[in-house]
Amino acid sequence: MNAPDKLQDLLSLTREPFPASRKVYAEGSEGVRVPMREIALTNGERVTVYDTSGPYTDPLATIDAKLGLPSVRTGWIEARGDTETYAGRNRVALDDGGKHEETARIEALRAQAAALQRTPRRAKAGGNVTQMHYARRGIVTPEMEYVAIRENGKREWMREYLGDAEREARLAGNAKGARIPEIYTPEFVRDEVARGRAIIPANINHPEVEPMAIGRNFGVKINANIGNSAVTSSIEEEVEKLVWAIRWGADNVMDLSTGRNIHTTRDWIVRNSPVPIGTVPIYQALEKVGGIAEDLTWAIYRDTLIEQAEQGVDYFTIHAGVRLPFIHLTANRRTGIVSRGGSILAKWCITHHKENFLYTHFEEICEIMKAYDVSFSLGDGLRPGSASDANDAAQFAELKTLGELTQVAWKHDVQTMIEGPGHVPMHLIQANMDEQIKHCHEAPFYTLGPLTIDIAPGYDHIASAIGAAMIGWMGTAMLCYVTPKEHLGLPDRDDVKQGIIAYKIAAHAADIAKGHPGARARDDAMSKARFEFRWHDQFNLGLDPDTARDYHDETLPKDSSKEAHFCSMCGPKFCSMKITQDVRDYAAAKGLSEEQALADVEQGMAAKSAEFKAQGGELYIPITPVQA
Amino acid sequence: MNAPDKLQDLLSLTREPFPASRKVYAEGSEGVRVPMREIALTNGERVTVYDTSGPYTDPLATIDAKLGLPSVRTGWIEARGDTETYAGRNRVALDDGGKHEETARIEALRAQAAALQRTPRRAKAGGNVTQMHYARRGIVTPEMEYVAIRENGKREWMREYLGDAEREARLAGNAKGARIPEIYTPEFVRDEVARGRAIIPANINHPEVEPMAIGRNFGVKINANIGNSAVTSSIEEEVEKLVWAIRWGADNVMDLSTGRNIHTTRDWIVRNSPVPIGTVPIYQALEKVGGIAEDLTWAIYRDTLIEQAEQGVDYFTIHAGVRLPFIHLTANRRTGIVSRGGSILAKWCITHHKENFLYTHFEEICEIMKAYDVSFSLGDGLRPGSASDANDAAQFAELKTLGELTQVAWKHDVQTMIEGPGHVPMHLIQANMDEQIKHCHEAPFYTLGPLTIDIAPGYDHIASAIGAAMIGWMGTAMLCYVTPKEHLGLPDRDDVKQGIIAYKIAAHAADIAKGHPGARARDDAMSKARFEFRWHDQFNLGLDPDTARDYHDETLPKDSSKEAHFCSMCGPKFCSMKITQDVRDYAAAKGLSEEQALADVEQGMAAKSAEFKAQGGELYIPITPVQA
Repeated sequence: MNAPDKLQDLLSLTREPFPASRKVYAEGSEGVRVPMREIALTNGERVTVYDTSGPYTDPLATIDAKLGLPSVRTGWIEARGDTETYAGRNRVALDDGGKHEETARIEALRAQAAALQRTPRRAKAGGNVTQMHYARRGIVTPEMEYVAIRENGKREWMREYLGDAEREARLAGNAKGARIPEIYTPEFVRDEVARGRAIIPANINHPEVEPMAIGRNFGVKINANIGNSAVTSSIEEEVEKLVWAIRWGADNVMDLSTGRNIHTTRDWIVRNSPVPIGTVPIYQALEKVGGIAEDLTWAIYRDTLIEQAEQGVDYFTIHAGVRLPFIHLTANRRTGIVSRGGSILAKWCITHHKENFLYTHFEEICEIMKAYDVSFSLGDGLRPGSASDANDAAQFAELKTLGELTQVAWKHDVQTMIEGPGHVPMHLIQANMDEQIKHCHEAPFYTLGPLTIDIAPGYDHIASAIGAAMIGWMGTAMLCYVTPKEHLGLPDRDDVKQGIIAYKIAAHAADIAKGHPGARARDDAMSKARFEFRWHDQFNLGLDPDTARDYHDETLPKDSSKEAHFCSMCGPKFCSMKITQDVRDYAAAKGLSEEQALADVEQGMAAKSAEFKAQGGELYIPITPVQA
Repeated sequence: MNAPDKLQDLLSLTREPFPASRKVYAEGSEGVRVPMREIALTNGERVTVYDTSGPYTDPLATIDAKLGLPSVRTGWIEARGDTETYAGRNRVALDDGGKHEETARIEALRAQAAALQRTPRRAKAGGNVTQMHYARRGIVTPEMEYVAIRENGKREWMREYLGDAEREARLAGNAKGARIPEIYTPEFVRDEVARGRAIIPANINHPEVEPMAIGRNFGVKINANIGNSAVTSSIEEEVEKLVWAIRWGADNVMDLSTGRNIHTTRDWIVRNSPVPIGTVPIYQALEKVGGIAEDLTWAIYRDTLIEQAEQGVDYFTIHAGVRLPFIHLTANRRTGIVSRGGSILAKWCITHHKENFLYTHFEEICEIMKAYDVSFSLGDGLRPGSASDANDAAQFAELKTLGELTQVAWKHDVQTMIEGPGHVPMHLIQANMDEQIKHCHEAPFYTLGPLTIDIAPGYDHIASAIGAAMIGWMGTAMLCYVTPKEHLGLPDRDDVKQGIIAYKIAAHAADIAKGHPGARARDDAMSKARFEFRWHDQFNLGLDPDTARDYHDETLPKDSSKEAHFCSMCGPKFCSMKITQDVRDYAAAKGLSEEQALADVEQGMAAKSAEFKAQGGELYIPITPVQA
């Protein structure tokens, strides 16, 4: 079959709504309509959760990858009246790399991709269309209102799960310096964006995006990397991988394609993505110079930035901190430079013995960013590639530079986040967060893991979820996922899912620890369903209902057992939950108050220790051995 | 085929040595011979790692499950001359539970099991044969020497991976109050056991055990739970699961069987286990009274303790802290009492309105424990079953009681560890460790996870590995694994492996963070192999070589690519490791010293900031929005 049909076919696999779930919308002003997923429980409750899957899980939406997604933001962008459409740069064959394919299949996709493209839009001459620019002028954009509604979620249902004063005090989060509001207001979002403490990645040429925020005082977000490479995989697979990734909860997706047809692949991905798309433009620039790092020029790179800004990429990873004077600090490392972009620029710098051209042209880059509202993701090209290289001079020298560049970007009102490691043992993670906050002025931190150990190939999604959860709690705003294939190969569809679920766990654990007001209720709903043996609700409230149900069925396949008041682990006689009901009746019968209860405990203690003394119990434990 | 043959057949699957690995032994005195796994790298290096797999991975060992494993400790036990053999209690049909099977298959296994049994041994009248008793008398046992050698591992090869002063200082662990020695000496082990800060679970009726230590100042250990249940699984499967579990790194295994043939299953497991075996005796006692909690009596329970002590069980989980006055503190919990043992005892207490008989008979239990050197694992029957119930009054009231009971046990020189939760959000984990150390006098803490969130059914091994790694770093001595089937069903063979690998990751991450002297070198060896593209070495140094190799082959199946100086992620042109070599040559050519390097950095910074000022760069970021 021809390529687009193959894609349509692939997508149909990922469009099924989640079990017992439907798409609902929370309305705001100016046509702001925020999608959420509502899960209907068997006890009549309705639980609403954050939804990154876009129109794909809405059975009412007609989706045709050849037409792309409907626009969410065009009206808002036009209403601001500060942009203009224009012809855009001429598309050239080289955009798909020195080795672009000419096969019929690719030509078909290329033609389709060209048809997909919207007329490019940019700021009017001398204008600035970044969300930060509006925020600093006191303007609350529809994007900001959208984000506020989205972060709040539907709080109504959560009341059911509010505990008494004792529980609320006991479980109160530890925000570690973050200032998380009880309710997100559009004005709060504006203020965070104005301060640079949060970004809303939303290129004016990506109106299909459903606005979301990345910031320390918002829920922790996760990013999934996709992209074909010189070695393997196809355009259709990458687009389907995007839809698959957001189905499981990716808040952002980075297209890290490095191979052929790189421009065409990106057209397909951006036009079909409801989440912000990030790229590393140096990868495409390198394809254009046949993969020879030393042949890179500012002109080629600059043209690539405009090309991608016109396509609608929402943020660029730019390794402007890989400065000539830092490079040799990596010479004695266990694993040198492990960032692709970092190593390409290091190669360029030492070959020409010149300062990194991304650093020297940084202000010119800012001019491009603010004309399209592309956000910076300042790359950590010198991040450690092993625990052994964590927190070293090269890493922190670059981090300080990224802090300086953040201030340059902010001078232009360009939204900015900072990329972080990588490989960091648990006891060195806090220092990463502290240094980043100190030197980067609270600009959002966006880390890859970090992996806490090096000896788990095949399980690095777990080794890194540990570090990710911890640094997320400490204040990192977005966690870049790691799949089981890290260090070994390219992730397939299932690897992408495994990586995303591991990172949803890390991000949620961080939100709970920070005390994000919308986080805990879903866990409480799950625990209540557990206690009441509502098996279907347990499956449906989970991050992956299909897998939970399959696992349960392996032991107790019968449908009846999904109503059963016991589970496979203990069998009927041992059911502790069942016994707990007796405990409740007992406590109710005894009618004990909390005071009496504690009194009982004290009394019990007293009696006990008296008993010890009576027995002449020797409580002192000799430290120096008694010679026999 | 008949049952034992089926078992032989199953075991053959798990006996293959790890790739490029061989069993080596470090010799001590008095026939102490500590097994380790030596991995031969392609560059000629030999890396030796801690090995829990016992004789099963030694191709020279003949293993016949029908004969059990050879004894490691009989000579040492006899040499102490403080024990006697005796007939032991009479075996009765009820030992296999009220509903024991009479099938030919089970009868065969039962006959084999009876033949397997060693003549029971106990302390001579009035004697005490615990490792703690010896330790407190200044006696260094062969078990203690064994543990010291085992914890050290072969340090020779690690020298290769010692960093310079800068690296060692930068990576120095944060022990959080633990006192981890540079080298483990037998005297250090004795002192830790004497203080009660470590235990060596080693029943004198389990001479097959390879001694290991559980303590805050030793490497973090992990436990795997196996056991058949009323609902499913067979004896052979459970024995094979034991061998499978220790292959992947389980330091301890608990047999949580609750179903029929519970005694026979245990015979098979203990006689074939080189690692300490723990049980929860109340499960068997309940089987003996037909599953009716209120019918439990001290007499039946006491008889069960002796039965299991004679079989060689190394530690008993005893829920003596579930006291009558605490039970109603669970009445308002989200998930009540979720510990099976805890709920059984709560049921008994409230039915009879009497204090827990394990609490009232605790000193009698100590008398049994010290006659066989069975260690206490004081159960947390009131642990939280949801994040919502974490750190509540019931949990901490029980923990305080466990601290008192620890002092009673220590009065009898009985080795003791304390069980902990369960479900605890990240920000409440530290309090669990602090309270345990405070109230339990540094007795080893043994936690189940904890799970940091409740919404990940199917992935609770990950949700809990996060909490396990953190609490392991904080001072927990042993981590009880959680499998992907937690809350859903009984773990099969692959689930057991998934749970163990996740927990090896957590334990190793904790060892690295604590600064265990033997921990980091393996990671460095892996990172060096990565940097040098020694793919086979990367697979073989990992926790799961098979999976790592399979994942790599999915992308680059050819053998040649395992020598290739690039990997599938980036392809040849992008290889950052390759580029790093150029960086090294450059740095070498430039001959820069660390001082010059840092000077360069400062200079660069100065230049940069000067540049900003020259541009009149406005570095102040307005906080209050400027009205347009």
